[in-house]
Formats: sequence, C-alpha cells, structure tokens
Amino acid sequence: MGKTIGSKTWFIADGYYSSISKGQLFNSHEAICVLNPGKEDAQIHITLYFEDRDKIDGFMAQCKGERTNHIRMDKIRDSNGKGVPMDVPYAMMVESDRDIIVQYSRMDTSQAEMALMTTMAHPL
Amino acid sequence: MGKTIGSKTWFIADGYYSSISKGQLFNSHEAICVLNPGKEDAQIHITLYFEDRDKIDGFMAQCKGERTNHIRMDKIRDSNGKGVPMDVPYAMMVESDRDIIVQYSRMDTSQAEMALMTTMAHPL
Amino acid sequence: MGKTIGSKTWFIADGYYSSISKGQLFNSHEAICVLNPGKEDAQIHITLYFEDRDKIDGFMAQCKGERTNHIRMDKIRDSNGKGVPMDVPYAMMVESDRDIIVQYSRMDTSQAEMALMTTMAHPL
Amino acid sequence: MGKTIGSKTWFIADGYYSSISKGQLFNSHEAICVLNPGKEDAQIHITLYFEDRDKIDGFMAQCKGERTNHIRMDKIRDSNGKGVPMDVPYAMMVESDRDIIVQYSRMDTSQAEMALMTTMAHPL
Repeated sequence: MGKTIGSKTWFIADGYYSSISKGQLFNSHEAICVLNPGKEDAQIHITLYFEDRDKIDGFMAQCKGERTNHIRMDKIRDSNGKGVPMDVPYAMMVESDRDIIVQYSRMDTSQAEMALMTTMAHPL
Repeated sequence: MGKTIGSKTWFIADGYYSSISKGQLFNSHEAICVLNPGKEDAQIHITLYFEDRDKIDGFMAQCKGERTNHIRMDKIRDSNGKGVPMDVPYAMMVESDRDIIVQYSRMDTSQAEMALMTTMAHPL
Repeated sequence: MGKTIGSKTWFIADGYYSSISKGQLFNSHEAICVLNPGKEDAQIHITLYFEDRDKIDGFMAQCKGERTNHIRMDKIRDSNGKGVPMDVPYAMMVESDRDIIVQYSRMDTSQAEMALMTTMAHPL
Repeated sequence: MGKTIGSKTWFIADGYYSSISKGQLFNSHEAICVLNPGKEDAQIHITLYFEDRDKIDGFMAQCKGERTNHIRMDKIRDSNGKGVPMDVPYAMMVESDRDIIVQYSRMDTSQAEMALMTTMAHPL
C-alpha cells in the first residue's frame, strides 16, 4: 500500500460490561473490532484502566493479515485465565505490532430490547 | 473548492449483517453512506475482510458528483452476483477514485424494536 | 484561545428524516449540533445532497459566540420556506464563517421505542 | 511513552440531560468518559454552553494517572453546588492539565427501553 494506514495504538474511554442480559437472541456484550489490512499478522495487547484499582494488562489477541477480529470483551481471558470485570466503568488501550484500525461497539440487552452504540477508537 | 476534502480510502472495522428482522417498518440493515461533494462522479470499490476466510473484493458502487449514495450492504452484489455473508463479523475497506466522505450506520431490528449505531469511518 | 479549534466546514454523510413517529414523548428527528467556543457569532450555511436530485443549499442558521445551537433538521426551513425532504437518504455539508465543532445525532421513534445514534461530523 | 497522546482540550457539541427515566435498571444519564494513560493525575475543568444563556464553567473533576473516570453529568456539581440543567440542549468543553482521551456517551431510558449513543469527542 505504500502509505501509512491506521495506527499501532488506539484508545477507548468508555467500556462497560453489563452482567445483565434479557435479550431473546443476544447477550449484552462489547467488542473491540480490529481490521488488519496489511499482509502480516498483528499481535494485539489490551490494557484495561479502572476508576478505583490498578490497570490490568494481560489480555492478548491476534488479527491475521487481511483479516478482521471482533474481539469479544465478554469472552477474552488474561494470561491468568481471568475475564474483564463486570458492572464497573473501565477504559482500554489497544496496542498492536502492526498498523490496524480499531472500532468499539457495545450491544446492551439488559432491558429486553437491544441498544447499540459504536465509535471509531482514538488513534495515537 | 481548492482544499483537499475527505479521503480516497476509508476503513470500517465493525460490520455485521443480521439475517433476522422483526421490525414492523424496517429490516435489519447496514449502510456505507458516501458523500461526494466534488463535481466529478466517484467510482467506489468495497473490500470485505473476515475472521476465518479470505477477503472478497468484487463489490462496486458509484456516487455521482454533488450527490450522496447510502450503499445498502444487504442489497449490494459482487461481480458474481453474490451478496454480503450474513451473521458473521466482517470489516470493510472503501476505495474511491475521488475524495469522498464515508460514514457507517447500522439498524438492527432483530428484537422487534429498533437499535441504531453510526460512526464516521476512519480515513487513510 | 490562540490555537485553531474546530473547522469552518464539516460533512455528515448519513442523513435521514423519518416521517413516522410513534414515541410517547419525542418525535423522530435529527440535529446538527454546533458548538461555537469563540466570542464572535457564527453564520452557518447548510447544503443538502441527495441520491437522485440536485443539491439544495438555502438552509441558514446562526450560532452565537460561546453558545451552542442544536439545529433541528425537522424544523429548519430554506429561504423559500421549504423543509428537509422526508423518507429519503441525504447528506449534509455545514459551512460556517467561524471555527465551530459539529456533531450529528438522530433520534428515531418510528417503532414506539427510541433509538439513538451520534457521531462527530468529519471536518475539512 | 515518548509520543504525544490524546489532547488537553476536547469538545462535545450534543449534550442533553433528560429529566425522565422509566428504565427498570438505569436512569437516563450522560457521561464524559476520560482515560488518563499517563502516570500523573489530571485535573479536569468542564465548561457548559447553552442556546439561550451564558456559559457555565465551574465544573471540576479529576482523573488519576493510569485510571479512567466516567464523569456522570447527572451527578456532577459546580463550585456553587448546582447541577447540569435538565431538558435543554447544551454543549461541553473539557480541559485538562494532562493529555487525556475523551469519549461521550448517553443512555436514554425516558421511554422504558434503553437507547444508547457514543462518540469520541473532538480534540483541539
């Protein structure tokens, strides 16, 4: 491609993983949606920031070359097997060894019907 | 206009085309909304990226000069007549031969009531 | 402030003004939300782009200095007294004689419950 | 980190704090979600802009180093103990003495079911 695309570091300030799901079809969930338009695989490292405790930085993922990975924050586990804390506000830093594009989306079904929100993450 | 506006390449990381629609008025759908503020027509080429299969790059569209085109991803067909795969995560690269502005929106009616989300795409 | 803030020209690619409202409290509507952080009043000129007809450029608004104006697209009238066409896709260019910040939001109540979406517009 | 991240000043043009909440689990609310990825604490100053009255600039908050703060606009009070006015359009400027990332989100439960919207704020 020649030109620089995307960024190696992206920030998302509004994370929230609801423990409540009443949807008929879907559970409440968030996704860090990664697009890797280059040919080389990207290794991705996610750091979580909280309001009342230290950051957690052991969440890893991969996005292969010319692929996407919609990283489900309700499914990811850190190197100790722990998941993302539920029902507390948090924020995320997404670091990659390749240039990627990052979009954040949330589906909330805690009140039966579905609510959606999305935004491009903020690049470094 | 003199100044450069928009970009010729835009990225959207969170695509999802739900096969389920229960809305009274609208089907679940996504749109790549293109604005071409220049006087020349823009030829648009959309590439789809997946989690588990090779990219597909045969989706073409046009946005005339000083017009918009809200490209419906549930209606577009590639050069072989195939549509966008349903119920799988995907991502999109939108390439144009003219500078355009690209916004991505999704309406989901899979649970009767409507959910909406939108974001500007990420420019190269 | 010294530094340049915002932009004089902003683009929104996904406009849609639904003629249907079933909400108990709110009608379906869109707003071009303008923030003018400077001290001078801003004169604003909105151009609408369509899929199948020529652009319309006679919509004017004002945002006073150190004020906001959430321009309701269901209420604005052009210099001939005409409103925004309903139930057709459109796009917008927002031009100002002062630097402003522009965000676009839509509330849809066409299926009884409310759906919301928002995004920062794309600056020139 | 070496490189500059985020910004010290961010703008949000679409603020609205609904006085009506019918949700079973959540009240209608907005949040200015701040991520401070640096090691130093950030002092945050929020100015509100209105359509029909002077700006209000006495809202203060803090985001500690390597922490997030999802500033709830329904809970914040200015130096005189006053809250954010309800049911009127407003806009926000967020100023920090450290580089931060700012995202704005709104949850509306005024019609029983939940609607969500989010966007990255616009940096200076």
